[in-house]
Amino acid sequence: MATTTFHGSGASLDAAAIRTAVANLLHEFLDQQSRDAPDLPELALFTALLRDFLGAGGKRIRPLLCLTGWHTITDHTPPPVVWRTAASLELFHAFALIHDDIIDNSDTRRGHPTAHRDLAAHHQDRPNADRIGVNAAILLGDLALGWSYELLHTDDITPAQLRTVWPLLNALRTETVVGQYLDLTATGQPTPDPETAWRIIRYKTAKYTIERPLHLGAALAGATAEQLAALSAYALPLGEAFQLRDDLLGVFGSPAQTGKSALDDLREGKHTVLYATALKHATVPQQRSLTHRFGHPSLTESDAQNIRAALIATGARTATEHLISQRLDQALHALGTATLRPPATQWLCELGHHLTSRTA
Amino acid sequence: MATTTFHGSGASLDAAAIRTAVANLLHEFLDQQSRDAPDLPELALFTALLRDFLGAGGKRIRPLLCLTGWHTITDHTPPPVVWRTAASLELFHAFALIHDDIIDNSDTRRGHPTAHRDLAAHHQDRPNADRIGVNAAILLGDLALGWSYELLHTDDITPAQLRTVWPLLNALRTETVVGQYLDLTATGQPTPDPETAWRIIRYKTAKYTIERPLHLGAALAGATAEQLAALSAYALPLGEAFQLRDDLLGVFGSPAQTGKSALDDLREGKHTVLYATALKHATVPQQRSLTHRFGHPSLTESDAQNIRAALIATGARTATEHLISQRLDQALHALGTATLRPPATQWLCELGHHLTSRTA
Repeated sequence: MATTTFHGSGASLDAAAIRTAVANLLHEFLDQQSRDAPDLPELALFTALLRDFLGAGGKRIRPLLCLTGWHTITDHTPPPVVWRTAASLELFHAFALIHDDIIDNSDTRRGHPTAHRDLAAHHQDRPNADRIGVNAAILLGDLALGWSYELLHTDDITPAQLRTVWPLLNALRTETVVGQYLDLTATGQPTPDPETAWRIIRYKTAKYTIERPLHLGAALAGATAEQLAALSAYALPLGEAFQLRDDLLGVFGSPAQTGKSALDDLREGKHTVLYATALKHATVPQQRSLTHRFGHPSLTESDAQNIRAALIATGARTATEHLISQRLDQALHALGTATLRPPATQWLCELGHHLTSRTA
Repeated sequence: MATTTFHGSGASLDAAAIRTAVANLLHEFLDQQSRDAPDLPELALFTALLRDFLGAGGKRIRPLLCLTGWHTITDHTPPPVVWRTAASLELFHAFALIHDDIIDNSDTRRGHPTAHRDLAAHHQDRPNADRIGVNAAILLGDLALGWSYELLHTDDITPAQLRTVWPLLNALRTETVVGQYLDLTATGQPTPDPETAWRIIRYKTAKYTIERPLHLGAALAGATAEQLAALSAYALPLGEAFQLRDDLLGVFGSPAQTGKSALDDLREGKHTVLYATALKHATVPQQRSLTHRFGHPSLTESDAQNIRAALIATGARTATEHLISQRLDQALHALGTATLRPPATQWLCELGHHLTSRTA
């Protein structure tokens, strides 16, 4: 997936303009990091990789939601700290994806080689290029994580703003990392119980991708506890629906559109609500199709087709589509009852539809 | 190595008391992280691993130097921010070692299994336990890195203090990570040119371990540019001598004392000043001994003995000992000419002798 087709409405929530402003802020910041370390020419490799990574599409959902969070509370122009927080989320996301791709052993991301594959290619003349690539990508992710916090330290930001932002960023990081741990330990352990899959979705996606970014913008605008709760009531079911869509795309999606392989999740043996539902309702032959080479690097396209057929025949695909609709309804209903500003809630409503019906 | 035998003198620089205070601060902080996330019981595994890791010895050089940096400038009692910065450095160091041990494929650290080995053991019933261990340790390191910054965010800390600390912490992180990258790309590429080995020492050790921790404490005490320069003139040669000693211990040290294998550096093919010097002066048969299985996981104790013999016979070991003495003299001389407070400089003098003559 190179770009999303979604465009927000309304001047204060122009999605394209927000994406451009965040990209510019990140590019300036990375250039500054290189300029600050003239005795470390190797740093240019890392900043260039991050610039490419951040430029290679991506939906920029978190920065958009951070700005939207601000606008759900106030019609004031967002101050620099909101933009910096939005950019910080995008750099944190680069870190999370770079380490995630190592953990998942993925070769492609956003239609390009993943960072560890890119860095392996950079050292292709070395006999252990693959290992060098992984190790260098661990370091690249570490830099991105550190810089995501460094971005917030400028004289523009007041102590009160930092006190607002930090606990939320700390919670977001802990939740995301533990969610990733839940995911990696559940991977390759197929079970018909969806409970763990739901917990992974909650921490690795719903809170990380939707709730915390909205909260960050809203809290900076002075949101009340009631307003933050209303945003959660929208964010958590939408985040669930978003991830359920992602799980469907990971298996049934078109690699040309998603930018990633439709075999990776099956080869890794990803534990999803979709897969757990299928296992639960499978006949013995369907169970055999579902588990044959699931979680094995040798899984072929033909194995994948058998698994896809079983995901359909067990009703798991339809059940997941139903869950997506139901969670989206729940999210939209929460918006209708909340004391949030209408232009932004209208935008959240559009975003909800977009995120859950996407094909990339 | 479980504990160091070094004890500072003078009540204000009681090394044992500093270590205890920093350990207590870190334990309280980690407990708080678990308490703040009651819905994430998995977090307890990570905080327990970090507590064990932080409790398993370690020299705590960086926290000691941060406090010493403060005392080189003022006789006031250090405020909480100095203690928090010291503890932050120790948590950052835990992150650096956890990721470093993955990159170096090390099995032991401080006489215990490394974090990724420990986490693999935790999942020993899984067929891919080793990979789960590495992946979970990447996440553990990520948490430690994030928390090292979170530690600094309390109401105790003023905006001016944060403005002092952040640029230094940012530089320290960039230097350390790039130093680690230089190290990993030089590893397995034996060359008689010591230039890269010196750059690795500068960024991965001298600035990270000695200069930046001293600067952090001193800057918080209001050090002048001249005082910071004087601390650098001590720190950089001492850091070089410290790493040269470490390189000697990595090959000639007693595993019972160092807590790590005396084969790891050779099996990894670490590019050190010691090894470059030997290659430069080696006869053809000595070159053969030096390069036989160097950088190969299959290197045996007998291969290692041949390499050690060649490191001695080429004069590289003696030359390295000479460099250590020379750098130590340079560091101590810098102390003698600086406008720093005598009780702390006396302590830095003792520390210099200790760090360069250690056996663990």
